[in-house]
Amino acid sequence: MKTIKLRSNVMAENNRIAQKLRETYEKKKLLVINIIGSPGCGKTSLLEETIKKADNNFRTMIIVGDVQTEYDAERLKKVGADAYQIETMGICHLDARMLQKKIQDIRPKGTDLLIIENVGNLVCPAGYDLGEDSKVVMVSVPEGDEKPLKYPAIFHRADLFLITKIDMLENSNFNLDRAVQNAKKINPDIKAIPMSSKTGEGMNEWFSWLEEKISRKKGG
Amino acid sequence: MKTIKLRSNVMAENNRIAQKLRETYEKKKLLVINIIGSPGCGKTSLLEETIKKADNNFRTMIIVGDVQTEYDAERLKKVGADAYQIETMGICHLDARMLQKKIQDIRPKGTDLLIIENVGNLVCPAGYDLGEDSKVVMVSVPEGDEKPLKYPAIFHRADLFLITKIDMLENSNFNLDRAVQNAKKINPDIKAIPMSSKTGEGMNEWFSWLEEKISRKKGG
Repeated sequence: MKTIKLRSNVMAENNRIAQKLRETYEKKKLLVINIIGSPGCGKTSLLEETIKKADNNFRTMIIVGDVQTEYDAERLKKVGADAYQIETMGICHLDARMLQKKIQDIRPKGTDLLIIENVGNLVCPAGYDLGEDSKVVMVSVPEGDEKPLKYPAIFHRADLFLITKIDMLENSNFNLDRAVQNAKKINPDIKAIPMSSKTGEGMNEWFSWLEEKISRKKGG
Repeated sequence: MKTIKLRSNVMAENNRIAQKLRETYEKKKLLVINIIGSPGCGKTSLLEETIKKADNNFRTMIIVGDVQTEYDAERLKKVGADAYQIETMGICHLDARMLQKKIQDIRPKGTDLLIIENVGNLVCPAGYDLGEDSKVVMVSVPEGDEKPLKYPAIFHRADLFLITKIDMLENSNFNLDRAVQNAKKINPDIKAIPMSSKTGEGMNEWFSWLEEKISRKKGG
């Protein structure tokens, strides 16, 4: 009982800060995307390709969450990204307070898009609002097409389902249609994009999705 | 401050129950293994192969934790496993109380080995003692060889590191030696077994590891 009450207090505090963040993003007309997926599902690889191909179409900033190490921000800086790391020091998700602190340090200006790469974890990050416009859930082909049914919370809350590493479809049991159907059982409105950072498949659709969101944010 | 104190109370309670479980396992001379890895790293596939090949060498029982669904226990039953599911209903890990409840229901008797397949998550399950003899950490080749450095807590606590899906090594950036070195930086005593449920590579070593542990438990 005490645990439940405390947890709901923690969540209320998180939501309060997330709401403040949302107002900050709104004022700056900054589109914020929160990417959630398991360790090794290809989050950082997708972001590398996104930065390489974005050119000057939109100005992007990336905040990467990891339990430990700054590898991912370093990887992203190598391809020219404006990337920042949050080390959670054992915590299994990013929360709004961590984001708020980082945003206060960075003071983003003239940025169109902030992508948050959450800690590699398909469970806990789903519960924490970071004030983002959209959550994006990522599952890679080697993980299996039943994942939406096993981890429904994030599929319920995400606007977009990126199915990554489709270059590995051959010789695998992963069925693309079944994966999408499973996701839509949880969330009928979710959009799915099968993609591969290796072959570039699906990248155009990902960019269209982002650009449409950015332009709607600017105009809104 | 309040959060930290409550968390330490939750952990103390978990450890108290885990200690009771440990005594129960000890009395039954039951070896208990707690397998921890990301969603889709191949935990259930390994257990399917383990059950198929174990024959009557040792009597095995499996408890599978998932946030939702009973798919994994069903998969395991299909290959003849004595398998039970714990649905955590949103919780990102198994805790000792969930195990205790399940063990009370099942009342294992004459079993040599209990394998616990934890919730797919490389972060949170690491912190919860289930009274097990050994934690086993699993990372699959598509996830990348830097994972031990990014998720040190579980590598610190595990006795065995299973590197799965090594049939996917070709055309990947995963370096086996580097993966083992990274794991040993966190835990010099960890043993590593590269394996593939598809080709059967590493299965003999996995069985030797289990058999040695079982016979030590029986004799001890």
